[in-house]
Amino acid sequence: MDTEVKALINELEKFLRDEQLTMNETVLEEHSTDESYHTPSSPNVVVFPENAAEVSEVVKLADKHQIPVVPYGLGTSLEGHVIPYDHGITIDFSVMNNILEIREKDFLVRVQPGVTRSQLNKELKKYGLFFPVDPGADATLGGMAATNASGTMSVRYGIMRDQVRNLEIVLADGKTIHTGNLAEKSSSGYHLSGIFVGSEGTLGCFTELTLKVYGIPEHQMAARASFNTVDDAVEAVTAILQAGVPIARMELLDEPSMVQANLYSETDYKEVPTLFMEFHGNEAGLAQDVSFAEDILKDFDCLEVAFETETAARNKLWEARHHVLYAYTHGYPGRKLMITDVCLPISELAGAIQNAQEAIRTFNLQGGIVGHVGDGNYHIFLMIDLDNVEEVQKAEQLNEQIVEYALDRGGTCTGEHGVGIGKQKYQEKEHGEALHVMEKIKQALDPRGLLNPNKIVKGRVSAGRE
Amino acid sequence: MDTEVKALINELEKFLRDEQLTMNETVLEEHSTDESYHTPSSPNVVVFPENAAEVSEVVKLADKHQIPVVPYGLGTSLEGHVIPYDHGITIDFSVMNNILEIREKDFLVRVQPGVTRSQLNKELKKYGLFFPVDPGADATLGGMAATNASGTMSVRYGIMRDQVRNLEIVLADGKTIHTGNLAEKSSSGYHLSGIFVGSEGTLGCFTELTLKVYGIPEHQMAARASFNTVDDAVEAVTAILQAGVPIARMELLDEPSMVQANLYSETDYKEVPTLFMEFHGNEAGLAQDVSFAEDILKDFDCLEVAFETETAARNKLWEARHHVLYAYTHGYPGRKLMITDVCLPISELAGAIQNAQEAIRTFNLQGGIVGHVGDGNYHIFLMIDLDNVEEVQKAEQLNEQIVEYALDRGGTCTGEHGVGIGKQKYQEKEHGEALHVMEKIKQALDPRGLLNPNKIVKGRVSAGRE
Repeated sequence: MDTEVKALINELEKFLRDEQLTMNETVLEEHSTDESYHTPSSPNVVVFPENAAEVSEVVKLADKHQIPVVPYGLGTSLEGHVIPYDHGITIDFSVMNNILEIREKDFLVRVQPGVTRSQLNKELKKYGLFFPVDPGADATLGGMAATNASGTMSVRYGIMRDQVRNLEIVLADGKTIHTGNLAEKSSSGYHLSGIFVGSEGTLGCFTELTLKVYGIPEHQMAARASFNTVDDAVEAVTAILQAGVPIARMELLDEPSMVQANLYSETDYKEVPTLFMEFHGNEAGLAQDVSFAEDILKDFDCLEVAFETETAARNKLWEARHHVLYAYTHGYPGRKLMITDVCLPISELAGAIQNAQEAIRTFNLQGGIVGHVGDGNYHIFLMIDLDNVEEVQKAEQLNEQIVEYALDRGGTCTGEHGVGIGKQKYQEKEHGEALHVMEKIKQALDPRGLLNPNKIVKGRVSAGRE
Repeated sequence: MDTEVKALINELEKFLRDEQLTMNETVLEEHSTDESYHTPSSPNVVVFPENAAEVSEVVKLADKHQIPVVPYGLGTSLEGHVIPYDHGITIDFSVMNNILEIREKDFLVRVQPGVTRSQLNKELKKYGLFFPVDPGADATLGGMAATNASGTMSVRYGIMRDQVRNLEIVLADGKTIHTGNLAEKSSSGYHLSGIFVGSEGTLGCFTELTLKVYGIPEHQMAARASFNTVDDAVEAVTAILQAGVPIARMELLDEPSMVQANLYSETDYKEVPTLFMEFHGNEAGLAQDVSFAEDILKDFDCLEVAFETETAARNKLWEARHHVLYAYTHGYPGRKLMITDVCLPISELAGAIQNAQEAIRTFNLQGGIVGHVGDGNYHIFLMIDLDNVEEVQKAEQLNEQIVEYALDRGGTCTGEHGVGIGKQKYQEKEHGEALHVMEKIKQALDPRGLLNPNKIVKGRVSAGRE
């Protein structure tokens, strides 16, 4: 081991208890990867701080010894965000998992970064409140803010960035800042929350989050609408959005995805292209929305609409949807997941998904399509055999083709998963000259390039070790 | 005139037509002030570019000669944002006022920065669409993005920052970037739109904006609810929000403000503390919302609720509300407007407004309260005699007291007007160490400090002229 790393660990051991610092091989290996196909790489040491002061101390020492720091939630990222390719310290936030305050009247909560979304929702339920951002994984809220995650309810409630009212952040020099306040809106100073949400640990470590929460809607109705073709389904989505129906969820699963969902979740849903929908509102308004949406669905040759008003049936439906990612990984043992994540303006979505289906067929790959189609965001879940060089290449080619298609039509290479290392090669094309502005911001806030080095921006920013 | 300025003007004259560049005293004076009480200061020259290439050329020359640049929309700012205290070039964007594209299906528009909100709404109406951000003034969209403006509908549709999908920006070195794309969401790279919205011309000049727009709601209902006391009104607001009624507008006018509104708008509304409200939705849902809200209003001793369903009556009501600022300035000839703009968590709003009313009485100042109370944001309109030193001091003391009260309770010194120069003295207290992060970002993107110098951040950033 590098002598600087050894010196650092010696200093860390002075203020962290035994169970807060480990070089155990199993733990290092756990922190060498995420849920993606990207090549693993281990940190030198994993630390488990219990408060912001300890995080600050760790980052200060990393700065002193010029050792990289990677913040880590639960490792559910999908583009290699948390893989420490330059080794160094992984800060695991799982011990900082307290819900600190629920400001019921202000629809705000204050949490530590290691709190998971389901942990928060369990607590909020007691107050008639809920948190709407729901990526597939039961991720930590810190990780969700770091990647600007979203999920099935973003079409109605917005994405992670929209929920963050304030962040407490330990910067590269160990200083602590807060980026916002408790007010609903502010025009005071540069909007730092905006730039830190989605910064993937490259600008600072989040040690506390203040988030918006919502009242559980008075009435909810879930529905499954079955179609002959994915095309019909997507056209129906577009029509519903354009009609101004305030839908709360609008998800697409193609035929292969319905097969995997049924297998994993023990449901017996019709295995055809399906929209999973949800409506929130007052009793009268909801009824009118649902009836209007049903009319539109029928205009697009919907085979059948199954409504679920019972809480249990509704939960089962959404569990099946949420578990699709695990359904795929479970359904293809030995294979790894490569997942595309483009998002397009809604007018381009039908063409994009048609193009994606053709590409899956052309490349003869295994997988299917799942999409937050209300947002114009869809995923191809590709299950690939990493030992099959040709298959990996084909999957990468398909990914590139899908991204190029989206970028050429005003879309983005990643709607919700983030850049990590998997989407880095598209940054220049997507952002052009703006990428240099991002590099300047990185340089200004992390001049030594020690915070999650070479993620999002790379090249001009060095990892700090000469 | 400074020789550098002369040299710059010589170069500007080479590519701008006569009518695009002026040193006419009247025009310089027009550009020496905004709608606030802040001391005027004239630019050396005002230019009227017609496209981004010309803006870039102007900024490049300013950089070459180290002359400050202040972008200017219509001068409706309220904290001295556009006043060029370091002189130099004012870039007036009023000629760049074309609506470039309406992407009806995508609920997006692309506009030049000089388009005003009413100009946009007039055009959008043809498509059944509208743009919801409505500050009191008919400001330009570029200016509204620069100050992160909001207005009466933010409680439902969000603030300016929420509507900006993409910005084309000329940076300090004259290079042009775009900050976003056309997709509903993205996790690709740092969220530059977030940091540029609200940057008040200190980080770049906006040359094009892509904005979200909305379908005109199927049904709308406006209402005026009269109360004995401001306290009752604010308590009713809090209760309606907490009950989860999805209100579209929720505005408070106190008794003096109702008097001014009636005088200016020739209305005969009851001159007591009043909530102006609006509900949007489908027919059935709206009816249920309105009836629920009415029940709550009655619980808080509402004297009367007057509903307006007719478009003309609804427009009259909202015009009266929008014109309150001009009503005050019209009602107090010879006096200048000083306006507070704090925003607090909703649970603190009632106490804050009570405190504000007491302060107005204690300081014996002339004015009243108007608030976007659904957001926790309220204004005191103070009409001050700038020649009366004691009165100016009292107004400043009151402003400080109001801001301190808000900051002590997790609020912000400015909910929607921005920092300009008027809120600069509160930046250290509000942001603490984060202010240094803002300074670093300013330094990284405008190293010579030539873009709207010494606004938002000051001190370490020099105006560029040694």
